[in-house]
Amino acid sequence: MPPIPPGPFAGRTITELAGELRAGRATATTLTEQALGAIAEPDPALNAFVTVDPGAALAAARQADAELAGGTDRGPLHGVPVAVKDLIMVAGMPATMGSRHFAGHVPAADAECVARLRRAGAVIVGKTTTHEFAYGPTGDRSANGPSRNPWDPARMSGGSSGGSAAAVAAGLVPLALGTDTGGSVRIPAALCGVAGFKPAYGAIPVDGVFPLSQSFDHVGVLAGDERDCLLAYRCLTAAGTGEIAGTGEDARPARVAWLDPAGFGPCDPRVTHVVAAAIGPLEELHLPPGVAEDMRETYLTIQSCETAAVHAARLAEAPELFDPEVLERLRAAALLPGWRYVRATSERPRLAEAVRALFDRHDVLALPAVPITAPLLGLRETEVDGEPVGVRAALLALTSPWNVVGLPALTVPAGTVGGLPVGLQLVCRPGQEDLLFEVAARRAGGGVGSRL
Amino acid sequence: MPPIPPGPFAGRTITELAGELRAGRATATTLTEQALGAIAEPDPALNAFVTVDPGAALAAARQADAELAGGTDRGPLHGVPVAVKDLIMVAGMPATMGSRHFAGHVPAADAECVARLRRAGAVIVGKTTTHEFAYGPTGDRSANGPSRNPWDPARMSGGSSGGSAAAVAAGLVPLALGTDTGGSVRIPAALCGVAGFKPAYGAIPVDGVFPLSQSFDHVGVLAGDERDCLLAYRCLTAAGTGEIAGTGEDARPARVAWLDPAGFGPCDPRVTHVVAAAIGPLEELHLPPGVAEDMRETYLTIQSCETAAVHAARLAEAPELFDPEVLERLRAAALLPGWRYVRATSERPRLAEAVRALFDRHDVLALPAVPITAPLLGLRETEVDGEPVGVRAALLALTSPWNVVGLPALTVPAGTVGGLPVGLQLVCRPGQEDLLFEVAARRAGGGVGSRL
Repeated sequence: MPPIPPGPFAGRTITELAGELRAGRATATTLTEQALGAIAEPDPALNAFVTVDPGAALAAARQADAELAGGTDRGPLHGVPVAVKDLIMVAGMPATMGSRHFAGHVPAADAECVARLRRAGAVIVGKTTTHEFAYGPTGDRSANGPSRNPWDPARMSGGSSGGSAAAVAAGLVPLALGTDTGGSVRIPAALCGVAGFKPAYGAIPVDGVFPLSQSFDHVGVLAGDERDCLLAYRCLTAAGTGEIAGTGEDARPARVAWLDPAGFGPCDPRVTHVVAAAIGPLEELHLPPGVAEDMRETYLTIQSCETAAVHAARLAEAPELFDPEVLERLRAAALLPGWRYVRATSERPRLAEAVRALFDRHDVLALPAVPITAPLLGLRETEVDGEPVGVRAALLALTSPWNVVGLPALTVPAGTVGGLPVGLQLVCRPGQEDLLFEVAARRAGGGVGSRL
Repeated sequence: MPPIPPGPFAGRTITELAGELRAGRATATTLTEQALGAIAEPDPALNAFVTVDPGAALAAARQADAELAGGTDRGPLHGVPVAVKDLIMVAGMPATMGSRHFAGHVPAADAECVARLRRAGAVIVGKTTTHEFAYGPTGDRSANGPSRNPWDPARMSGGSSGGSAAAVAAGLVPLALGTDTGGSVRIPAALCGVAGFKPAYGAIPVDGVFPLSQSFDHVGVLAGDERDCLLAYRCLTAAGTGEIAGTGEDARPARVAWLDPAGFGPCDPRVTHVVAAAIGPLEELHLPPGVAEDMRETYLTIQSCETAAVHAARLAEAPELFDPEVLERLRAAALLPGWRYVRATSERPRLAEAVRALFDRHDVLALPAVPITAPLLGLRETEVDGEPVGVRAALLALTSPWNVVGLPALTVPAGTVGGLPVGLQLVCRPGQEDLLFEVAARRAGGGVGSRL
């Protein structure tokens, strides 16, 4: 299918928008109107949004304009239109979690991350499509229908924060919130050609976010480039001061290693090539044997049991309200024995130690975000580098390990393969987030995605 | 069956033994010889010991004597014979865990609690029978055969630290180590008419103790009376200085409440009567509705999953080596779904809060340790107060709640029902352990068990 034409925010950074707002060349109201107009236009094809609330958005925009006019400046997000994944509570706006179980559900209070966005002056324009209950990296099973990839609407956006990625990639908004339990920010960001950042575990509170798996749930951000992710992240961290822990006295450039993606399973060699070329020649590291398999097993076991616990009552009382594929997966998850959960939990310190050793001589690990480009909607089996693989397993292969160990991970556009975007993923230890963004800026063709 | 005649340590407190040792009226060697001789005599009937190591015990006793003679005094346990549950590692002494899986297993290092006993000068005489892998409160399923109750060898000692309780009750040793995951110190202590103390979670390290359920495992002590438990406990806590956290400035007497045992399930009214009479009239508290059921469910779910995780490889590779009943229970435990484990884990803070509220106006809760007297060996179903109940469920009903919330709990002899002992259980918050022992000393007929 033909790509979605670029929307009003394509190629515009938040810093540029902030400059326009303060120079009087734009107002929060005009930016919000642009977003609302653009969403109304391509969205039936893209299906990025579940709910748009023009009244609330325009009211917030007018207030932001009045504040700016009155000399109250809340910082770089002041007056900027933002979209929020439909799993994150926005007071007074429906939150369906992508499920018929929550049709008509309207939360009374903002999630903490949303409250922080508002304190930063952002204008929330609407809620974006999520895979049902965020339980799937494909983004194509939702009570709202599949979100689609702006590069080719016949293809997946990826998920579960598919609507947020599609909305940013199509230029409908400059920034969106997502959640990332095994890659749900980074996978759609990579498949849609935008930047996506999953911070360290606990860095942004999950209060008011519908849980998928408490051990791995993170709130993250999606934007056109890594600088906008960093800026939004700074507004969302505890202090909200825009400051994050940096390298401090350590002024030498970040030491970056290439982490061989083949250690995690099959990776399309064209993806590896394009991503490696974007970051340039680096020392190559390899995971110790067995660690990737143990990471995957640990991830799937803990996530499955925790997700089944979240949905136990719904599974028992109204299974018919789930999407059939989601239901089938939940039922399988509910059968996983508890001893495997216990064992998986006890594995985590060993896995964390194996990963920590990768940072002995390096600050940042570089690898692809996803080993394949966006599959066609509904595809569940594919072939990668001559091997048959499940699409879900392939999508999660390179992202979920960093949820298991809770490390910050950023994906940025790295080029295209067959006309579809691929992402460079950068991983660091908590407290060294600044280095991720510094390294991302070094890459060839850095900046806003090349197509739009 | 006729009771086992009292052994050499019946009615002798550790304080008395310590006095005899220092007055030259006894030596560690003579005490150890008394213990070894007594163990050899009744033990075929009692089956309290799995392994006795006369050579090592006498060598340790001679060293203790030499130290005392040379002016080195390690404190009240110096030269005192002690028995250790066969689930706790003693360097160079077989540790079977009551299982054919560990036939011939000889650990190289002491468990931390054993190392502390040795530093306190105690003489380890042997290893006591445990229910296989401590997985049962009846004490009658072990590769070593059932441990028997000295009051009536046709009856259970209770478990899983059944050998330790029987050994102390029969006066074979003045002190024994046990473990307590759901009541495994307190249940056999109560059924055998001795004192048993399960400290706060984490107060004594479990390093070197074979796990049953990591969330609930505790090391505890069994002795003739509560003063000896306190003395041993002080030697086993981290500092090993004999000091434990007390009430400090708070010099008023402990405020004690009676916690209605009927809230936890059926309780033999004769047991309730005898135990209540021992402590005297008190304000009565009741658990809020549903809390006991939720405690039991939480306990069973977490314990089952964690135990199944410990034994997963053995279950897969050599199931025939388990006792058939233990195998059947492990197989059922291995089927419990992980989502229930997740949910049970998330219940614990709510249950801890419900229990905390019981201490709003009181320092110590009093209730029976076990709602029944010692059942006949092998019995699995019984009737309590007109209700049919499982023996395991009845034995655990009043003890396992305090493992779920990790509170210190002491049982002391409170009298007899039908010629069999019953225990008064006292529960406090961590840091108030001294109050438990103060309250225990108040009871009618306090002190060493009445029969022996």
